[in-house]
Amino acid sequence: MGEIGAKRWNFGANEVVEDACSQTVRDFLNLLVDNLDRNDARPVIPLGLGDPSPFPSFRTDPAAVEAVCEALRSSKFNHYPSLSGLPLTRKAVAEYLSRDLSYHISPDDVHLTVGCHQAIEILISTLAVPGANILLPRPTYPMYDSRASLSQLEIRRYDLLPENGWEVDLNAIEALADDKTVALVLINPCNPCGNVFLRQHLQKIAETASKLGILVIADEVYKDIVFGDKPFVSMAEFAEIVPVMMLGAISKRWFVPGWRFGWMVTLDPHNIMKDSGLVGSLVNVLNMSTDTTTFIQGAIPDIIGKTKEEFFSSKLGTLRECAETCYEEIKKIPCITCPYKPEGSMFTMVKLDLSMLEDISDDLEFCCKLAKEESLIILPGRAVALKNWLRITFAVELEVLRDGFVRLNNFAQRHSKKKT
Amino acid sequence: MGEIGAKRWNFGANEVVEDACSQTVRDFLNLLVDNLDRNDARPVIPLGLGDPSPFPSFRTDPAAVEAVCEALRSSKFNHYPSLSGLPLTRKAVAEYLSRDLSYHISPDDVHLTVGCHQAIEILISTLAVPGANILLPRPTYPMYDSRASLSQLEIRRYDLLPENGWEVDLNAIEALADDKTVALVLINPCNPCGNVFLRQHLQKIAETASKLGILVIADEVYKDIVFGDKPFVSMAEFAEIVPVMMLGAISKRWFVPGWRFGWMVTLDPHNIMKDSGLVGSLVNVLNMSTDTTTFIQGAIPDIIGKTKEEFFSSKLGTLRECAETCYEEIKKIPCITCPYKPEGSMFTMVKLDLSMLEDISDDLEFCCKLAKEESLIILPGRAVALKNWLRITFAVELEVLRDGFVRLNNFAQRHSKKKT
Repeated sequence: MGEIGAKRWNFGANEVVEDACSQTVRDFLNLLVDNLDRNDARPVIPLGLGDPSPFPSFRTDPAAVEAVCEALRSSKFNHYPSLSGLPLTRKAVAEYLSRDLSYHISPDDVHLTVGCHQAIEILISTLAVPGANILLPRPTYPMYDSRASLSQLEIRRYDLLPENGWEVDLNAIEALADDKTVALVLINPCNPCGNVFLRQHLQKIAETASKLGILVIADEVYKDIVFGDKPFVSMAEFAEIVPVMMLGAISKRWFVPGWRFGWMVTLDPHNIMKDSGLVGSLVNVLNMSTDTTTFIQGAIPDIIGKTKEEFFSSKLGTLRECAETCYEEIKKIPCITCPYKPEGSMFTMVKLDLSMLEDISDDLEFCCKLAKEESLIILPGRAVALKNWLRITFAVELEVLRDGFVRLNNFAQRHSKKKT
Repeated sequence: MGEIGAKRWNFGANEVVEDACSQTVRDFLNLLVDNLDRNDARPVIPLGLGDPSPFPSFRTDPAAVEAVCEALRSSKFNHYPSLSGLPLTRKAVAEYLSRDLSYHISPDDVHLTVGCHQAIEILISTLAVPGANILLPRPTYPMYDSRASLSQLEIRRYDLLPENGWEVDLNAIEALADDKTVALVLINPCNPCGNVFLRQHLQKIAETASKLGILVIADEVYKDIVFGDKPFVSMAEFAEIVPVMMLGAISKRWFVPGWRFGWMVTLDPHNIMKDSGLVGSLVNVLNMSTDTTTFIQGAIPDIIGKTKEEFFSSKLGTLRECAETCYEEIKKIPCITCPYKPEGSMFTMVKLDLSMLEDISDDLEFCCKLAKEESLIILPGRAVALKNWLRITFAVELEVLRDGFVRLNNFAQRHSKKKT
């Protein structure tokens, strides 16, 4: 069989995949990591990915850990999970989500997923019928973009307006949508902008979507990460106006993105999604998809019930301090501007003024050189579809954040145009 | 907004999904459960799904449970997992899989997945380029079929031959394949047939696939569930002849299907998959897919290292007894025949002789009436693409299995044609 490598093989690269994968945050982060200077003895400061869980200040509550250990030791949760999840878990999630709402969510409308990520996978692949399109925000959470590309669902992009506190450009929504537009994605609290949408604005979005006949995908994975003056209002409050698919997870509130537990909830009081066949197709895709770990499902009632309020209020206090520090530090650096003080999520967007820099042509070059010279990772805006901006996470240990801004300031000074 | 339900909405059912989902085991099991008689006070006997984990005899090893608790309590594994998995986990899986091989697997070739199920999802969607087709066995593990349909990858079906101990019909493979055939799926030990393939036969399959230019997908999730005379030989031994994608999981050996931890391994010594671009596309789809729970990844070295050999030998002994009981009990029922004594996996296939039954027209009617009259769940063969056969799992508590056969025997007698 010496000639094995020489003959013709039928398989190869998948071009749709290659197009879709150019949009992932991971690819950009990997590129930045490749740019790090191995001779720099300083620790790398990761302001590119929203994952505070490795930092001591954001360690999860021991009550949550013990809930999982107890579920494991009970030997009751080693079996294959059932479709859409265990009834006791769906009930616990429905009750948890109903706390902040003016009505009760039914456990039947709660479908458990392997993190919010799998909810996106399942939802996008179900919506991707031939010729359909979806409205995604700019700046975006790019997992929506890559999954839409992978499913060959056309992406149309509406703007979040920095000059209006990152509100949705509602006129753009009306101009972009046609009778093939199946859904609009809204991330609230907003990743990557850090704003929280006002009730009146959410209502306008719901009314616009209703008028256009499109579903609202309400990604509320950061719903509990709110530390500014504006209260969080769920899009679920407007399900009377427009069908809403609400996505979430335990990752953010409990600081455990690695536990991989999320949900999608169909809010459909007029049975519009159900009667259209969408809910049936969605459940069928779920049925064909891998499941959430059973013992984590088994632990969810205790994770929700036994984590004390003080845990959350303490973590939110820390995050608020981080967000404020971030906002103040940004002001000290002339070449970047933050249009809006973050009040939720773990991110803020800052605009890069390239005219002030002498040897940097765009956001990607900025971030690559920053990684190389300062061992500081910040995501270039193009990774979230907004070129020449930067996405910065403030959800790290406060001292690490401060160190990061010292490095960023040094870098900016070193590369700024010299006065002539 | 009173007229909300009356206007036109743009979203709806996805027809590709509806076609694909008709093939899932879950759908058939749900149908059978719907047929159960709620007035029957006897417990339901589940011989339809291969999940022994709820039975006391198949409880997992406490060492595995403690390994997970320890990983959780360390607080080191709450973060987002990295692409393809944690290095320490990939290394542990590579070493575990290399134990039975004549060479060493590199950790770089091991990609971690949310159970073997997600490996199937990722692999099938990567292989599904326009016009491509895949060779699946009859009888099949239908998750391959439904995922292929969902990805619009054409299915061509080769037979496993009961008269030849369920060996692959190699002539059919050659007749079915063309230059659009990307892969062949082989499940060894075989779900649903219960056989273990011989080394010489595996070599012939590898040579045939090599000649045809197609990848071999070696689903070896049951590799450790072997209790007959034939040793298990991995398709990995023939990677010099043909590129092999090996799939597996901890679900079977540790009896924890609900833990959702699996892998896919690229065995590609001549870089055929790599140079073709397939490995790149596969890693990119993985990159866009939800991840395996980080703390389970963190526990894997200890799960593998600390579970004692006695645990496995004891469980295999129990399974052997179950398989033998099953085989002997089948012989006592005239209308079913088992062509081959199971020597691996958790299943056997039996042929239904409908001519001996007076009011049952096919396998589905048999199983629906059996559920209704005897609270016994057995999967109709059509669910695994072999009509008028039955798939029976013997991986339950031995007494439960015996009770199941009492019920099956009663049912068969009640429905058998009366002598005239």
